[in-house]
Amino acid sequence: MKIITISREFGSGGRELGKRLADILGYAYYDREIITAIAENKKLNENYIEKILEKGSLKGYPLKFGRTFSSSYSITQQNMTQILVEQQKIIKEIAVRENCIIVGRSANVILKEHNPLNLFVYADMESKIIRCYKYAAEKENINEKELIKKIKQVDKERALFNELISNTKWGNKEGYSLCINTTGLEIKELAFVIADYAKYWFGGNIK
Amino acid sequence: MKIITISREFGSGGRELGKRLADILGYAYYDREIITAIAENKKLNENYIEKILEKGSLKGYPLKFGRTFSSSYSITQQNMTQILVEQQKIIKEIAVRENCIIVGRSANVILKEHNPLNLFVYADMESKIIRCYKYAAEKENINEKELIKKIKQVDKERALFNELISNTKWGNKEGYSLCINTTGLEIKELAFVIADYAKYWFGGNIK
Repeated sequence: MKIITISREFGSGGRELGKRLADILGYAYYDREIITAIAENKKLNENYIEKILEKGSLKGYPLKFGRTFSSSYSITQQNMTQILVEQQKIIKEIAVRENCIIVGRSANVILKEHNPLNLFVYADMESKIIRCYKYAAEKENINEKELIKKIKQVDKERALFNELISNTKWGNKEGYSLCINTTGLEIKELAFVIADYAKYWFGGNIK
Repeated sequence: MKIITISREFGSGGRELGKRLADILGYAYYDREIITAIAENKKLNENYIEKILEKGSLKGYPLKFGRTFSSSYSITQQNMTQILVEQQKIIKEIAVRENCIIVGRSANVILKEHNPLNLFVYADMESKIIRCYKYAAEKENINEKELIKKIKQVDKERALFNELISNTKWGNKEGYSLCINTTGLEIKELAFVIADYAKYWFGGNIK
């Protein structure tokens, strides 16, 4: 199977790039779909899973599991472990089923032995702010200072999650095949050249 | 002018990529040519300039200039400053003269206001070792341990040189438009997709 993983800074356009690549290449696209699958398999609420996986609920919980089982948060800890294990299982199942693009979830680490094309998408802060405002829901009223804080916070959580399952640091270029700075670029057009890069990479990879 | 700068880890194939891009795009190629130009302009020996610029002779010299003028190495210091100033001058002259590809010399920093396409080329150590042996002159007899040491040393000097003129760290993805991991890739084929990326980038850049 041909697998593309996309890791991305919040606001860099990585998700849009993933969707567009999936369209151009005819690959399956996975992002939130993974949460839905976990919810179904584990009979859990999607929002709860999302909170555990994405909204920083890792914060405050010890990163090593299985030490204490006496307090009430042990249940959450256990749930978190279960969710993470389930997520890895689902991602590995997807990887043997079809050509796909997986956004986030440290899929580059989880699918290492499948030798995926690992993209990292980033941009300068100014560019990320512009993109965030452009795509923000109308009801979202957030000032620039708060937005910068949010961007940094989300990325910090992504880095932390990556640390949980990997020895390599999130965002360090060594962990990726191609790192794309989207500052000043239109994702719509960018997607076509990256699709060409992917075609080359899967065909020309001598490994 | 359309300018592509290439920064690269030693052994990653960055120089070959630069030459091939120049061929495909019809751009002028600058690498050692800059040293020749400095030598002509400053009436200095090419090997001497190369030693100052590339072979680690920065090591041991204070990075801030103009403090002492009493010792014998002050002459070398002065020469180094002159050479660096001359190099910057030449690089800036090239940038307004023709579409070009400049390898190394922190041209990405020097030409910042020209908004060049800044590439960083890297690879894992195993891949760099293979490439180095493949292109080594027959007389060069170097064992793997020595080669790894050399690769690290050259990159360290490049990083140091970059530090001299820039606030951004050499190799940090934030300083580049695209970071390309060449592990397992053939530069000959890679050059064509990167040339396409360059065409897109110069056409599609909204800045």
